[in-house]
Amino acid sequence: MQGIAQQAGTWGIVLLAHGSRDARWREPIEAVARRVAERAPATLVRCAYLELSQPDLRSAMADMVAAGAVGVRVVPLFLGMGKHLREDLPRLLDDLRARHPHVPLELASAIGEEPEVLDLLARIALKS
Amino acid sequence: MQGIAQQAGTWGIVLLAHGSRDARWREPIEAVARRVAERAPATLVRCAYLELSQPDLRSAMADMVAAGAVGVRVVPLFLGMGKHLREDLPRLLDDLRARHPHVPLELASAIGEEPEVLDLLARIALKS
Repeated sequence: MQGIAQQAGTWGIVLLAHGSRDARWREPIEAVARRVAERAPATLVRCAYLELSQPDLRSAMADMVAAGAVGVRVVPLFLGMGKHLREDLPRLLDDLRARHPHVPLELASAIGEEPEVLDLLARIALKS
Repeated sequence: MQGIAQQAGTWGIVLLAHGSRDARWREPIEAVARRVAERAPATLVRCAYLELSQPDLRSAMADMVAAGAVGVRVVPLFLGMGKHLREDLPRLLDDLRARHPHVPLELASAIGEEPEVLDLLARIALKS
């Protein structure tokens, strides 16, 4: 993203998704990031992936901090969150907090925990 | 679901998700199914999983047909769809069509292809 250094002082948002060997898998995740950037042009936004796709969360976080983010919010774009993610992700965040002790790091609810998302998916399922 | 035989003659909806070893992973998928049932009580709705969780799509389809569904719509609750899913799912549907030649089987867009979903996820990412 050009001009990112000018956005210093803002919070950053990392859209965290699973990842896949298939580059096309990332398209909807990147589309969400574009929409975030359109809605809030001053916000730093990055995608990150747990496996198989790049960047990983550690790289995305370092990138945000280098760009001047004063805090980072991780939004898990996961409908279901398994034990792996529920237990491993908090450990990964602890590691990132140790690496960047002066940058607050928040973990948002997974999208599958958002009633608005569940309602919309039900409406979509009923579209014919 | 009790009383399912009384719902004969309707289309059925299968919410297809990835699946996980972790039973809690299925909770949001089942929550969407409950919302579909609340919005459209006469609709047959089932969850099905590609791997690791039960039932699989073949079982869910057989269940729908046994319950009297006159057609089935498969809604992929996948944000990203990799090559595996884009190529294997159509083959799986062809197999099901051969098994149930008198029951039309439709494949809906994946939720990651729905602009409304992408917009909502961007709004959620920007909530603080």
